[in-house]
Amino acid sequence: MTAPPPTAPISTVVRPVAHDGDAVRFLDQRRLPREEAWLPCASAADAEEAIRTLAVRGAPLIGVAAAWGIAVEARRLAGDGAPDLRAALRGAAGRLTAARPTAVNLANAVARMLAVVEREGDGADALVRALRVEAGRIEEEDREACAAIGRHGADWLERRLPPVGGRPDRLLTHCNAGALATAGIGTALGVIRSLAARRPVAVLADETRPFWQGARLTAWELDRDGLDVTLLPDVAAAAAIASGEVAAVVVGADRIAANGDVANKVGTYGVALACRAHGVPFVVAAPTTTLDPACATGAGIPIEWRDGEEVLLLDPSGESPLRVAPEGVKALYPAFDVTPSALVDAIVTERGVSEPPHATGLARLLRG
Amino acid sequence: MTAPPPTAPISTVVRPVAHDGDAVRFLDQRRLPREEAWLPCASAADAEEAIRTLAVRGAPLIGVAAAWGIAVEARRLAGDGAPDLRAALRGAAGRLTAARPTAVNLANAVARMLAVVEREGDGADALVRALRVEAGRIEEEDREACAAIGRHGADWLERRLPPVGGRPDRLLTHCNAGALATAGIGTALGVIRSLAARRPVAVLADETRPFWQGARLTAWELDRDGLDVTLLPDVAAAAAIASGEVAAVVVGADRIAANGDVANKVGTYGVALACRAHGVPFVVAAPTTTLDPACATGAGIPIEWRDGEEVLLLDPSGESPLRVAPEGVKALYPAFDVTPSALVDAIVTERGVSEPPHATGLARLLRG
Repeated sequence: MTAPPPTAPISTVVRPVAHDGDAVRFLDQRRLPREEAWLPCASAADAEEAIRTLAVRGAPLIGVAAAWGIAVEARRLAGDGAPDLRAALRGAAGRLTAARPTAVNLANAVARMLAVVEREGDGADALVRALRVEAGRIEEEDREACAAIGRHGADWLERRLPPVGGRPDRLLTHCNAGALATAGIGTALGVIRSLAARRPVAVLADETRPFWQGARLTAWELDRDGLDVTLLPDVAAAAAIASGEVAAVVVGADRIAANGDVANKVGTYGVALACRAHGVPFVVAAPTTTLDPACATGAGIPIEWRDGEEVLLLDPSGESPLRVAPEGVKALYPAFDVTPSALVDAIVTERGVSEPPHATGLARLLRG
Repeated sequence: MTAPPPTAPISTVVRPVAHDGDAVRFLDQRRLPREEAWLPCASAADAEEAIRTLAVRGAPLIGVAAAWGIAVEARRLAGDGAPDLRAALRGAAGRLTAARPTAVNLANAVARMLAVVEREGDGADALVRALRVEAGRIEEEDREACAAIGRHGADWLERRLPPVGGRPDRLLTHCNAGALATAGIGTALGVIRSLAARRPVAVLADETRPFWQGARLTAWELDRDGLDVTLLPDVAAAAAIASGEVAAVVVGADRIAANGDVANKVGTYGVALACRAHGVPFVVAAPTTTLDPACATGAGIPIEWRDGEEVLLLDPSGESPLRVAPEGVKALYPAFDVTPSALVDAIVTERGVSEPPHATGLARLLRG
C-alpha cells in the first residue's frame, strides 16, 4: 500500500459557518468580496432569511445552515419555555425547506433534523442537545464529503488529462461550488484544489450572472488561497472551450435526478453543450446528499425563478443603485437549468465516481 | 402583383448619427439608457476615439462613423490649408481601420472613402465635397439595406414559423444589432421590427455582458418603440431555448467568411449551439458589407481582445466605480466569437437570404 496522494490543505480555506460556544454565525456572501461581514443565526427565521436572500448559498451549505437554524431555534424556544416545542420546530422546518426549492440538500438536511425531533424523548434539554449534535454531524459529514470528492475527482482527472509538460491544466468552472458553498474545501473547487496539490492548475471562472458567484466568490476564495484564477464573462465560455485551451470543466450541482440529469446554476447547460461539441470532459462534483432518487429525470426537478429585479440591479450588496436597463423593462431570472445526463462525463461523489450510463452508476454509488 | 407586405415604420426609430449642416454628432452609447448625450465628430480622431471606446459601436454603424470621420477630417484639414491633404487622409484612414479589427464593415467603408481620395482631382474643395457625398451615400445605403434585410428576414420567418394562434412569436436576440448599430432600423432588430409589423412578436434580449448591449441598448430602443421586450441574463439563453418558448433566434454579424462562418458578439456561438440542440432556427442578419470573401473560413477572422478591466468595472459610462471581483484578479475579454456555418439556418442580407450550404448561397448573393 502506498500513501494516498495529498489533497489540498484545508486549514487555510475560508469557512462560511462560524461557531463560538453555542453561538452560530454565517458569512454574508452578498457583501463579498468587499467585506467579511457576519450574520448571527439566533433563530430558524435568521437562517431562513439568510438562505432566501442568498446571504448563505450553495447547495451543501444551505443544508448545513438550515440544520443549524433548527438547532438554535430549539435552544431559543426551550429557553423561553415554549409549550409545544416539537410543533414549533415542525413549522420552522417547513418554512426552511420552502426557502429555496431546487437544492435537495436543504430538504435532506431538514429531514434529518426532523427525524431527531420525532425520535427524541420528552425532555426539552435532551432534544436541544440532540439537535445540536445532529447539526454538527451534518456539518462535519459535509466537510469530509468535500475532501473525499476532491480526492476522487483529482484521481479521475489525472487519469483523463494528458500530461501537459509544465503548462498548467486550465480548468473552467461555473458559479461557486467552493468552500463558500460547503462546510469544507468545496465540491467542484474541492476537486480543483486537490488536483492543484498534485500538478499545476489554472482556473477560468465564469463570472456567473446575475449574482456574480464566479466574480465575487470563486475568484475571491481561490485568489485568497494563492491559486491562479482568471475571470471570464459567461458569454466567453463557449469560445474558450472551442479554443482548445480548456482541459476540463468542473461544476457543482443542486439536485441530480436518478438518471443523472443535473440541475445546477443557470448557465451550466450551455457550458456542457460547448464541452460536448469540442470533446472537453464535463465533470459534476457533488455529495450524495445532492442525489435525488425520487426524481426520475430532470423534468421532475423544481426550478426556482427569482425576482427579475435581481437581474436589473447589479449590486447584490444593495449599496449601489446601478441599474443597466431602462426603468420599466422587465427581466427573467430562472436560477437553475438542467443539463441532460448524456452530456455529463463524470459525477464525482464522496463514495466514488459515476460514469455513463449514470442511471446505473448512481444506483451503484447509492447502494455502496 | 400584390403590394409587398408592410415593414416597420422607421420614422420613430432612433438615429445614432445626427447632421446639422456640415456638423456631425454621434449618440454616446456608453451613457445609454441613462441619458442621450451627443459627441461632436469634428475630426477623424474624434471618430476613431468614439469607435475605440465603444461610444459608437455596431458593425454597420462603425463603418458609417468612420466614413464621416474622414469626410470631416478632409474639411478640417482643407480649412487649415494643410499642405498634403491626401497623405494626411491616408494616415487617418489607416488609424480608423485599426481602431477595431473584427467588423469588416469598418475596413470596407474606409476603403470606399480612400477610393474617393485617390480618384478625385487636385482641388481640395472638390475632394471635400466628394468625400461628404460618399459618406452620405454609405449612410443612406446602410439605411436602405436595413429596410431590405428586415423585409427578407420577416418573409423567411413567416414561411418558417408555424402560426401561433394569437400568442406572440418569441424571438431571442443577442447583443444589439438594432437602430443603434446601423443607420436604419437595424439588422437583427430590423428583421424583428418588420415581423412585428405583420404579427405579434415578443423579444427576449440577452443582456450581453460585458458591455450590456442587450440591457442598455436593445431593451432601450425596443421599449422606446413600444415593442414587448424582456431581458434575460446571458446564462439563461440555453434554458430558454430548451424550454420550447423561443420560436427563433435572430442576431447580427461583424464579419462573415466565404463559407458562412459568422463572427459576432461573444456569446453568439453558445446561443447557436443551444438552437441546434433543440431545432430552433438560428438566423444571422447583416448587410453584404459584412461579407468578407477574402476570409475563406472563420479561422481567418481577426478576433478583438479588449482590456479585461472592462469586464471588471461594471459601468460602461465610467461614473460608478462598482467592481465585483476582488482587486488584483484578472479577466479575459474576447469581444467576439465565431459560429460555424453549419449552425446557421439563414443569413439574411439586403440582396436576399442564403440557406445552407452558405458557401454557395453567399457566392450567389455576391454575384447577384
